[in-house]
Amino acid sequence: MATRAAARSLLVDIHTHTYLPRYAALLRARSTAPRILSRPKQGSKDVLEERLVILDNEPSGGRPVGPQYWDREQKLAFMDKHGIDVSVVSTANPWLDFLPPDTASTLARELNDDLESYCATSPTFTATAATSHQMKRLYALGLLPLVPSVPIASVLSAIDQIATLPHLRGVIVGTRGLGKGLDDAALEPVWQKLAANSLVVFIHPHYGVGGADAWGERDNGHVLPLALGFPFETTTAITRLILAGVLDRHPSLKLLLAHSGGTLPQLSSRLASCITHDPAVAARLQHDARWYLGRLWFDAVCYGPEELEFVASAIGRASRYAESDKIKPGDQTLVAAERKDGSKRLLWGTDHPFFPPIGEGAQDEKWMSVMENLEAVDAVGPWGAEEKDGVRGGNAIELFGLDK
Amino acid sequence: MATRAAARSLLVDIHTHTYLPRYAALLRARSTAPRILSRPKQGSKDVLEERLVILDNEPSGGRPVGPQYWDREQKLAFMDKHGIDVSVVSTANPWLDFLPPDTASTLARELNDDLESYCATSPTFTATAATSHQMKRLYALGLLPLVPSVPIASVLSAIDQIATLPHLRGVIVGTRGLGKGLDDAALEPVWQKLAANSLVVFIHPHYGVGGADAWGERDNGHVLPLALGFPFETTTAITRLILAGVLDRHPSLKLLLAHSGGTLPQLSSRLASCITHDPAVAARLQHDARWYLGRLWFDAVCYGPEELEFVASAIGRASRYAESDKIKPGDQTLVAAERKDGSKRLLWGTDHPFFPPIGEGAQDEKWMSVMENLEAVDAVGPWGAEEKDGVRGGNAIELFGLDK
Repeated sequence: MATRAAARSLLVDIHTHTYLPRYAALLRARSTAPRILSRPKQGSKDVLEERLVILDNEPSGGRPVGPQYWDREQKLAFMDKHGIDVSVVSTANPWLDFLPPDTASTLARELNDDLESYCATSPTFTATAATSHQMKRLYALGLLPLVPSVPIASVLSAIDQIATLPHLRGVIVGTRGLGKGLDDAALEPVWQKLAANSLVVFIHPHYGVGGADAWGERDNGHVLPLALGFPFETTTAITRLILAGVLDRHPSLKLLLAHSGGTLPQLSSRLASCITHDPAVAARLQHDARWYLGRLWFDAVCYGPEELEFVASAIGRASRYAESDKIKPGDQTLVAAERKDGSKRLLWGTDHPFFPPIGEGAQDEKWMSVMENLEAVDAVGPWGAEEKDGVRGGNAIELFGLDK
Repeated sequence: MATRAAARSLLVDIHTHTYLPRYAALLRARSTAPRILSRPKQGSKDVLEERLVILDNEPSGGRPVGPQYWDREQKLAFMDKHGIDVSVVSTANPWLDFLPPDTASTLARELNDDLESYCATSPTFTATAATSHQMKRLYALGLLPLVPSVPIASVLSAIDQIATLPHLRGVIVGTRGLGKGLDDAALEPVWQKLAANSLVVFIHPHYGVGGADAWGERDNGHVLPLALGFPFETTTAITRLILAGVLDRHPSLKLLLAHSGGTLPQLSSRLASCITHDPAVAARLQHDARWYLGRLWFDAVCYGPEELEFVASAIGRASRYAESDKIKPGDQTLVAAERKDGSKRLLWGTDHPFFPPIGEGAQDEKWMSVMENLEAVDAVGPWGAEEKDGVRGGNAIELFGLDK
């Protein structure tokens, strides 16, 4: 492929998962969640289907899984179908969370090597006519052995490894850290080393905030844990990081939030107000809560143009809150400029292989979940071609250094 | 007071709480949360202060409380200080949730009578030069004995009582219902009777979604439960109502959501997508999830103009989703019109007496929490004078029928 995108901007998917063969084999060998189990397919007793169960008591006995979860050729076929030039692939939840420390450390190293190979042997293309730089179609985010009782040296060693693997450009992490959450002081050297190596940290939910008590007795399938519990979890994790001063202490740390930051944007002014009214908390932070949103990156996986515009506005207004916690409504020219500016920290993604088409025969169609997120970018009023190109790919190329 | 607002529009506070003397006395008599306790004031051993503890293990030993929590003259003084013409007062959380059914039923009746008297004896004024209608400065939302094992007839009887009390214009409810949440089928006759009587239902959080596991070990004061747990709870409650079909079955039910709907607006397109990908859930709903936001009312207590504009956009776009779950990005003229239209379901509020000024001497100042929410309305770009007047008071007058 010589000049894949000579005449246009690239489409880059930064929220796309894989269960590598080595990881899928591990899940198949387990008898408790997370696991992959085989069972007779509904309605056809003699045909087995594999189902992925990632949580205890998961509704509907987990979800059906197939080669799109582990086969690299399926990932590339999915990319071709939707015009995606480059994917920054990450291992899906729950990563290594359920493993003992030594196994987690060994497997992190092996899976990071697998990921490097997954990318390094992927097709190459020349990104634009203006440069001779050869890009790969696949890059990846590595894994850290973030589990209880792991020696921090093992985590730091995994970062060292990732920094030497040329196609790994960051890490994906859940929200539990070493068991006490991401605001655990024990993680300070981890943030420091990730920042020092310019590795992007993709914060992704798994457990949800909520649970059976919150969701109640009705059968609502996966809707409540996925639509609400996941974004609540991401919101909680990043808020705890802000409150712990991690963003103050590590100004060059690059944090990327799944699902457009969950609900942090909509709650950011309320968060600022609650902090102001809790002086002991306010005193230890350098900035108004809204300021920190300008320090973060957000994926554009929120399925609507109004949501995207709002997230961009919450990012774009951040610098107004550098010095003070007073409200500073801008004039409308400023507001429009802020929404363009905020777009620079939004990066498009698909959440593949989750949210596949529904129903028989739908497999040949383009995925609605993908097209909604693509059409949403195009429909954001204050954005021009430059901002839309940035969200679709340019911002990812810059953040992950894909042109380097 | 003859023509309090002859030359201008009214400022109406629809999110303002009181602990009526009868209720405060009950809390003082208790030895477990919720309770009001007396303890020596920090730094001055001989002076007692009262503290309100509404949850077990509440941080900081609860919050200091004083006459602004129960004294009606203090409510009126607060209103005068901030130019608030009318308040629609509600009993604060946790309402009657902690009481046995018979006590809850009796107390609901007594407190509803107290509330009526609280309003009926408040000052009267002539709203505008154009009408001779005499308005009160205080209206209220009544209480229902929504506790486990209560006979539904007792709840219905409380609604009948409220419907006869001229200054009560709705009810405030938490999210537990009879113990199983608001999507409990046992509540069907309650929704029906509330709708039939045109009583507004103000849905307000208390318990939070999250809790110690989610908030972690660091001392962040009240910040996480208030800034995140509260809006998560409201979001969960309204989502469960939507999923249970309550809005489909009761099209005239008037639901008003605290704190601008929590995070429902930011999660509404994700919610729609998750429902689409869970066909069993999708099949039982009449509309795309986003459509239901156009059926709800939202308070304007979110502390920022960008948040307000976004909530208005999520309300205003709702009608585009009447028939289909396809994304329908509007043109920019339509988008601006939608944001004006969405403002009609936003109603200003203060959350008084919570979030008071911080620090010595600050008691004489206007409250920052109030002024932020007032300034936010003024700073919403797409809104003209008509929309701003509506959010500040006109919408409340219409929804609660205050001019009738």
